Amino acid sequence: MISKKMVDYVKGSSLIRAMFEEGKRLASIYGAENVYDFSLGNPNLEPPSTVKEAIVDILNNEPNTMVHGYMSNSGYEDVRETIANSINKKFNTSFTEKNIVMTVGAAGGLNVTFKTLLNPEDEVVVFAPYFGEYRSYAANYDGKLVVVSPNTIDFQPNLDEFKSKITDKTKAVIINSPNNPTGVVYSEETIIKLTNILKEKQKELGTDIYLISDEPYRELVYDNIQVPYLTKYYDNTIVGYSYSKSLSLPGERIGYLVIPNEVSDFENVVSAANVATRILGYVNAPSLFQRVIARCLDDKVNIDFYNKNRELLYSELTSYGYNCIKPEGAFYLFVKSPIENDIEFCNMAKKYNILIVPGTSFACPGYIRIAYCVAYSTIENALPGFKSLIESIK
Amino acid sequence: MISKKMVDYVKGSSLIRAMFEEGKRLASIYGAENVYDFSLGNPNLEPPSTVKEAIVDILNNEPNTMVHGYMSNSGYEDVRETIANSINKKFNTSFTEKNIVMTVGAAGGLNVTFKTLLNPEDEVVVFAPYFGEYRSYAANYDGKLVVVSPNTIDFQPNLDEFKSKITDKTKAVIINSPNNPTGVVYSEETIIKLTNILKEKQKELGTDIYLISDEPYRELVYDNIQVPYLTKYYDNTIVGYSYSKSLSLPGERIGYLVIPNEVSDFENVVSAANVATRILGYVNAPSLFQRVIARCLDDKVNIDFYNKNRELLYSELTSYGYNCIKPEGAFYLFVKSPIENDIEFCNMAKKYNILIVPGTSFACPGYIRIAYCVAYSTIENALPGFKSLIESIK
Repeated sequence: MISKKMVDYVKGSSLIRAMFEEGKRLASIYGAENVYDFSLGNPNLEPPSTVKEAIVDILNNEPNTMVHGYMSNSGYEDVRETIANSINKKFNTSFTEKNIVMTVGAAGGLNVTFKTLLNPEDEVVVFAPYFGEYRSYAANYDGKLVVVSPNTIDFQPNLDEFKSKITDKTKAVIINSPNNPTGVVYSEETIIKLTNILKEKQKELGTDIYLISDEPYRELVYDNIQVPYLTKYYDNTIVGYSYSKSLSLPGERIGYLVIPNEVSDFENVVSAANVATRILGYVNAPSLFQRVIARCLDDKVNIDFYNKNRELLYSELTSYGYNCIKPEGAFYLFVKSPIENDIEFCNMAKKYNILIVPGTSFACPGYIRIAYCVAYSTIENALPGFKSLIESIK
Repeated sequence: MISKKMVDYVKGSSLIRAMFEEGKRLASIYGAENVYDFSLGNPNLEPPSTVKEAIVDILNNEPNTMVHGYMSNSGYEDVRETIANSINKKFNTSFTEKNIVMTVGAAGGLNVTFKTLLNPEDEVVVFAPYFGEYRSYAANYDGKLVVVSPNTIDFQPNLDEFKSKITDKTKAVIINSPNNPTGVVYSEETIIKLTNILKEKQKELGTDIYLISDEPYRELVYDNIQVPYLTKYYDNTIVGYSYSKSLSLPGERIGYLVIPNEVSDFENVVSAANVATRILGYVNAPSLFQRVIARCLDDKVNIDFYNKNRELLYSELTSYGYNCIKPEGAFYLFVKSPIENDIEFCNMAKKYNILIVPGTSFACPGYIRIAYCVAYSTIENALPGFKSLIESIK
């Protein structure tokens, strides 16, 4: 018998599987090219060619026992140093390899962070809409998610409600900007206000509140918008980064944490993150890809690919009468559901072979998420369906 | 402040780090080539050349978005099918891709298994000496390790004590054969007796007891000894495998679980393992290396390399008066400490620039572990030190 905690997860996962099976069923009837799957954040975009070049060069020129071997649980020292230097150059910070812990993607990094920080019943504040997995990650360590309700005007965080929800049990706050599912980038104004609230609350409550910046979409921004680097605004910041999107390597599970010297209890946090990496069974981030990304720090996927998709999808959908803000980053469009029930709307979309995700999955009912990390032609071919769909409602 | 649970881990890890730092200190004084590090199971042996060939061929001939992309949390279906077929051929089983979950190494697989199965206070039985990380893996899910004391005659499990330690709280039993740290392979006779005890106890208690076979060393056996395949002896068996040793890829974190149809609550166990892979933040086993190992299933490192080390170390140490059984598998020699206090003995060894691990770390005080996955010359050069060390005690 499986554990009691897993029973509900398994029920939930059969819903996801049902959606996946439905996609497969539609594909078998209409052909895969006639099913428009906007449900997953799986980039349909090759990594930059430098990734392959780096792999081959490493295999030819670095000792294989080292390349595929164990290293410190935190990762290769030289890789961590290279990453620290790269961050310093970009954001005028002063990190060293001691501030970097290599992780099994951003998801691994968040689990390591929560394992490091959370006592049972500790509270983790998130801003809706938020990536639903945060709830599981916190629950893994008996932490509790406290949700700040969405500000559906511009999807910047609702800071008044945020302030009221911080208690002496608040151990961490997660920010995800550029945001999944809205594509919104939190402005510097937002960051300053938000971190000022945290500073006040730390003082008032006499506690440490860690700000966790989950940044897998940092490089995916449009129109030259700037994404503030949070360690510069608030001492108790831990950054979780991933190469899943910036280098189109989601399956390789490679990312890192930045734990600045200024973080409360720094030495212990770094040591605990190292140990957590080991005992959670990651042991270390995959070794070859640690070495690969160290050679590709200045590369990223061609953002024009996503931008073209964004422009087409946004301009067409709004012209059909859909209501949404224009995303500034990531590869999601977060659209107001033309009917109140977002789950029902996603079911209606299936009739047009369109697969999308209800906002309810992100604690924001009444909206739907369209992941546009797909081929341009998929969008082109799906547009008539999107048009018919909204017309069928009017 | 870090979580209360992590405080002790961090203390423990600073002991390990102290040992590591001591190694570095010795290397800086005497030169790295004059420090004999037998403390880690990090193979000093290249992967078979087919690994590199597979990587290059995959990068050249498979679609890059697929190779580096997300797939089912359980892993690529074709990879899992290939693995199932390979196991079936070797062990006359009848697994399909449904029975295989790709994991982030064996450590990832054990964490997924415990997350899937354990309720708080559930007991997991282990046989001393055992790999110390099992304790952390079980504790991650609030499980409790119940230790069967070592049988120091031949290091086969102590079955009488085992029988007496199974209660209605026993959820799982871990077997690790070939064994770290002893190198012993559990005989078929042992397996039959052990699984018979489990069958009786399941019946008597009306519970499910899962037998977890942790098998990272399965391929590393000497003198053509056979390692029984446990699913054939006991229905409720879950196998955890890793390519860390068989292909010398410990840093790549690639392995799998076998969950047979016959396992109690099969559908839920498989679904929960899939979900656990996701929510523990692994998301999936590293994608490129899933595809690589599927092409290298019949390859393994040159076992002669380890066998030469085994023969030299065993024959020389016993000729100096050290007392140990000859390992049948893995790459460890588990030696009776010439003085009662194994920790003190390991400290004495440092005077000869020899780094070894006390048996206390494996719940078997009075012994020491020597990892011989090192260069042959390291053993040759360390032998005079081992000799002087035991002579200094007599």
